[in-house]
Amino acid sequence: LPLDETGFVTGMREYRFMNLSDLGEFGLIRSIQKATRRHHSPALIGIGDDAAALRFSASRTVLVTTDLLLENVHFDLTYTDYYSLGWKSAAVNLSDIAAMGGVPRFCLSALGIPSRIPAEDILDFYRGFEQLLRLHKTTLVGGDTCSSRAGLFISVTALGEASESRIITRAGARPGDAIFVTGAPGESAAGLELLQLRSAARGMRNRKTEKRNPEARLVERHLRPVPRVAEGILLARSGCASAMIDISDGLSSDLGHICEQSGVGAEVRADLIPVSKPLKEMEKRLSKPALQYLLSGGEDYELLFTVPRQRVKKLRSLALAATEIGTITKGSGMFVVDHNGRKQALLPQGYDHFPRRSL
Amino acid sequence: LPLDETGFVTGMREYRFMNLSDLGEFGLIRSIQKATRRHHSPALIGIGDDAAALRFSASRTVLVTTDLLLENVHFDLTYTDYYSLGWKSAAVNLSDIAAMGGVPRFCLSALGIPSRIPAEDILDFYRGFEQLLRLHKTTLVGGDTCSSRAGLFISVTALGEASESRIITRAGARPGDAIFVTGAPGESAAGLELLQLRSAARGMRNRKTEKRNPEARLVERHLRPVPRVAEGILLARSGCASAMIDISDGLSSDLGHICEQSGVGAEVRADLIPVSKPLKEMEKRLSKPALQYLLSGGEDYELLFTVPRQRVKKLRSLALAATEIGTITKGSGMFVVDHNGRKQALLPQGYDHFPRRSL
Repeated sequence: LPLDETGFVTGMREYRFMNLSDLGEFGLIRSIQKATRRHHSPALIGIGDDAAALRFSASRTVLVTTDLLLENVHFDLTYTDYYSLGWKSAAVNLSDIAAMGGVPRFCLSALGIPSRIPAEDILDFYRGFEQLLRLHKTTLVGGDTCSSRAGLFISVTALGEASESRIITRAGARPGDAIFVTGAPGESAAGLELLQLRSAARGMRNRKTEKRNPEARLVERHLRPVPRVAEGILLARSGCASAMIDISDGLSSDLGHICEQSGVGAEVRADLIPVSKPLKEMEKRLSKPALQYLLSGGEDYELLFTVPRQRVKKLRSLALAATEIGTITKGSGMFVVDHNGRKQALLPQGYDHFPRRSL
Repeated sequence: LPLDETGFVTGMREYRFMNLSDLGEFGLIRSIQKATRRHHSPALIGIGDDAAALRFSASRTVLVTTDLLLENVHFDLTYTDYYSLGWKSAAVNLSDIAAMGGVPRFCLSALGIPSRIPAEDILDFYRGFEQLLRLHKTTLVGGDTCSSRAGLFISVTALGEASESRIITRAGARPGDAIFVTGAPGESAAGLELLQLRSAARGMRNRKTEKRNPEARLVERHLRPVPRVAEGILLARSGCASAMIDISDGLSSDLGHICEQSGVGAEVRADLIPVSKPLKEMEKRLSKPALQYLLSGGEDYELLFTVPRQRVKKLRSLALAATEIGTITKGSGMFVVDHNGRKQALLPQGYDHFPRRSL
């Protein structure tokens, strides 16, 4: 990854080792403002007023999404470093803009911060946040910071733009459409399991020495997912995709959302889902067979999309790193054909925040 | 207040007395979606996809703001009912749009919900949220819900629109400008203190019988503030205001923000700040003199704005419920002239989430 943080880190150096109570709330806001300021901001009005003012070109529609990340629910500070946490908080929101085929433009961040966390860690969070935004030419334009008496609470809102006729919803899949997925799913969930197995908190600090390590690759995929922004834009511009979603809950769950909203079913072929080399290499250390991670592992932020048969040839001409894994069907059932050719029901097995109690 | 909730309550009746684990995460989203659906939604794509898609008219700029409300920091469930909490969560965000002179259009809500809270209470939250939005013709278009292992976390994002040339920032005040405030400040802080004094949680349940009660008026101002949306729009369209902010931290603090961002000072006359009848009547039961609530009481969501002298006459012709309370000065100091004609330094005394430690 092209991590060039020099200017950014310099701007924040003076706040090292301070506590939030040394900075004060408005000191913190000013330091965030200073550290994320750009020479040419595309915002009319950015951080520091009641609201940001953004100008989108006349013929474009505004896309907006918001996502929460809560300590001990979405992340665990014993194995997540703050830079990665900032990165991921931005990434999961940009991924939602990507999943509509939009171009991310602006972000707002709201943080509830326990007093135990030093200012330096919060600024490290914003370094990671800002780095991910820079990679995608997106600008932080506002937010909110307050003290939290419970854990660290993160809420991010992302705004993007798209041409109205090119927006790709979850509702456009039709029977016969091919199902595609970008990259290789399942790595993030495997990385999370490996992180949980580690006794000490090593985070990503030693990532350079770990580069060739398959475990480090899986862990990086969990801690610093890369939203498929370019792929989403390309799919929207080409007009190839009929429906799209990003894999946040897990392939089976997110395919379920497409099926439900499109009023269709799906059949997935297990042998077609790409298994990455690191996942294959680490399978023996994991608690479940690789297929479980492919089908139910969330937080990959790969794009799952459907393509009408007559557009599959055009899609292939785009040379997108995406793999055909199945077909949309009539009805509402989802099935998976396993490696032995047996057809089984595919149940959405992603994370439900309020799981139903079995009676 | 014109509370006509009939259709809305009916749509949610079936969820009464359920727990979130009976609904499930997606059940909860569907019930929110159902309860807040309108016949004619101005959103191209609303709740239920990766992002909402919004179309603003070509010549208008998008305003966006986000605010957090955390349990035991911003609110206390022992004296706040869920309907009021939803109302207020929407109100504080619309107030930020109003403070820019914008027209609120869309909202997103993100909730981290502890499992102890019944589904009915969350839906009550959304009833209050939706009611406030309806009063201001604003639409809920998306959000996020997840479980929280700590308290209830609320994050709301509001989007509005404005003509670029009519946006009123905090930075436009000039020496000589008159300082105005809408309505009567200080009531919300007094209401909060009275709520804290009450031993039992009565909330707003008996508000009809309490209508003539000055205590109930102050409590209502704290629990269900009304954002000055129409006033903000009128000020923007008239071109009268040079700077504007909403009073969330307290008059002295928020005037301080205008002074800092405009590079000016201010002189306020204590005898000009309107004291409401309920506040005057309840003063003997409060811990501090009324002036303290006027100057430092936050969460009124009144608008504080400055007007160049040559536009004061035009402002008065608007018949806005606003009072002139002082003058913008050169330099950076803020002063208050008390009832005895003594000039004292006016220190920002609003809430700082990370107060500086005294050394």
